[in-house]
Amino acid sequence: MKLTVDEKIKNVPHYPKAMMYGFEDGWTILSSNENPFPPSPKVISAVLDALPTLNRYPGGEAELKAAIAASYSLEAGQVLIGNGSNELIEMCLKAMQHPTKNGVIISEPSFAFYQIAAQVYGFEVKKVPVTDMSVDLTKLKDLIDEKTRLIFLNNPLNPTGTIFEEKAFDEFVRSIPDDILIVVDEAYAEFAENTSFPQSIQYINSFPVIVLRTFSKAYGLAGLRVGYGLGEASLMSFLERTKQPFSVNTIALIAARTALSDKDYLKKILENNKKGKQFFYKTLEGLSLEYVPTEANFFLIKVGPEAGTITKKLFDKEVLVRFMGAYGLSDYIRVTIGTMEENTRFIEVLKKLL
Amino acid sequence: MKLTVDEKIKNVPHYPKAMMYGFEDGWTILSSNENPFPPSPKVISAVLDALPTLNRYPGGEAELKAAIAASYSLEAGQVLIGNGSNELIEMCLKAMQHPTKNGVIISEPSFAFYQIAAQVYGFEVKKVPVTDMSVDLTKLKDLIDEKTRLIFLNNPLNPTGTIFEEKAFDEFVRSIPDDILIVVDEAYAEFAENTSFPQSIQYINSFPVIVLRTFSKAYGLAGLRVGYGLGEASLMSFLERTKQPFSVNTIALIAARTALSDKDYLKKILENNKKGKQFFYKTLEGLSLEYVPTEANFFLIKVGPEAGTITKKLFDKEVLVRFMGAYGLSDYIRVTIGTMEENTRFIEVLKKLL
Repeated sequence: MKLTVDEKIKNVPHYPKAMMYGFEDGWTILSSNENPFPPSPKVISAVLDALPTLNRYPGGEAELKAAIAASYSLEAGQVLIGNGSNELIEMCLKAMQHPTKNGVIISEPSFAFYQIAAQVYGFEVKKVPVTDMSVDLTKLKDLIDEKTRLIFLNNPLNPTGTIFEEKAFDEFVRSIPDDILIVVDEAYAEFAENTSFPQSIQYINSFPVIVLRTFSKAYGLAGLRVGYGLGEASLMSFLERTKQPFSVNTIALIAARTALSDKDYLKKILENNKKGKQFFYKTLEGLSLEYVPTEANFFLIKVGPEAGTITKKLFDKEVLVRFMGAYGLSDYIRVTIGTMEENTRFIEVLKKLL
Repeated sequence: MKLTVDEKIKNVPHYPKAMMYGFEDGWTILSSNENPFPPSPKVISAVLDALPTLNRYPGGEAELKAAIAASYSLEAGQVLIGNGSNELIEMCLKAMQHPTKNGVIISEPSFAFYQIAAQVYGFEVKKVPVTDMSVDLTKLKDLIDEKTRLIFLNNPLNPTGTIFEEKAFDEFVRSIPDDILIVVDEAYAEFAENTSFPQSIQYINSFPVIVLRTFSKAYGLAGLRVGYGLGEASLMSFLERTKQPFSVNTIALIAARTALSDKDYLKKILENNKKGKQFFYKTLEGLSLEYVPTEANFFLIKVGPEAGTITKKLFDKEVLVRFMGAYGLSDYIRVTIGTMEENTRFIEVLKKLL
């Protein structure tokens, strides 16, 4: 057949396959920045109640929007729900498609999907290297030109775990032409302990800023794919026109709504993360290994030029971490903070390999 | 702010809000072509097993692909999984975007999402009116020009329930230039009893034909959003590049895989549909009401110029059907075939209103 596909699409990279594996019980999985604890009994119970209704199309998106809005003292019209933040990222790109004003700026490294999705929609992507492992907002600003349409910021930054602070963000937002959409992906925000973490949501009504959050990390629902976006109401209404109807399924909607109200679970998760972080810092210092202090539920360890080999050897011992070669950080591995048992197991295996 | 959104996006219609309502127990819901029975105990049981893993990103897409492929004696590379057929429709549009060859042809009426999605991706949509309530493949062929990029066929056709037959499809496919992608959406195919229903899957390797199927209808999983596409392997690989990673969640994947293997459930559903259809035909003939014989799990009833009012009055009695005014069929309502209890309840209320 003569059916042709645009070069643009042919050149879109496949998503890293390493993330797609399924693993058996017993593996120590510290590779995908997931929450190490299963959903709370409250979430499980709400899901059970919904099972007999699965023959019906999903309802309940309005209720989840209302609950999220209330938790931030916003209006429901300022909230968008997506099938993971990925769908929200795509909605921003779809709505902002433009024949000539088609530039996207991202940090390098950053979450891989920004670039993949931007390429699908024909955007030209410029990348700004991090400075001291952190998003460099000054260098990023210097790259803006008349073609710039969207900027994706990731705070805390995946894969480094660092943040940019309130003051830098405030200056940045005020200095950007207001025909550019700034998407602030805060997937890991709940884990940030630094009190200078930006109050980005306070900018959504006065600036073209959209803040993305997710139930995949601190709320422990990566398997259900629910993200949300917060922004100015008329902008959100435009974005919603590009959304697939029913893109978030019944189970995802009810689980997210229940998780949002389950403060005890969230508290437990954040305490475990804090404890794990302190354990790792202390242990790695004892081993004289460099690491990047984190504001997220993962962090970078500098294991040296053998980082790729060490990742493979950890894998052979059923410990899964992420080698950072593909992110241009070939001396580093990224490790998710797990349960104390998982953290200890990782350190034990790592010690033997070094 | 000066942020602008393209007119193209501003003009995309919102999806009909009527479908978004949630209804309490006790309502007779015959408006969305859903399966009237809850998922089988086997599906529920598989879902329960997966609940403790929801903190992990979804796995199992490869297994579902393999199971679907095996059920059609295809290779896994000929199968794509989507978050409902909607995602597959979007993947076709994303991959086929083209600056000048940007025409889409659809039947009118047909499933509303084809046009909404095509507009989001900047395609120009031409519509071919049905003839005798059926897709008119001859008129459709006449509309093809050098700009035509995609044709969406829906068989059986939503909202009329009619089919085009094998012979007509065969002639059509052979006469179409092979730089045009033909997407055959067979969401309701399992319900078709007419033995002349096309064997469309036999065309996927020799023609640019993609067949879409879904777990939302006969398999009773509308609330979970799982569709799949069957097509030539290299074409499917290109389409997959435009797919959101993890777009089908853990619960959806495991439920679909289990549902596919549960032949008894499917048999029960198809028998109920056949029985309901015969009940409706007989009853409506007794009431001297015209209807359109169906190959799906829904059908059109000609209730006359008061169809809109009758729909509202049915609603007041907690019976939900779809008024076809928005589809240019203002004398008609579309009724899903429900359980025998629901079918009887609908007829009782309708009788009193006529």
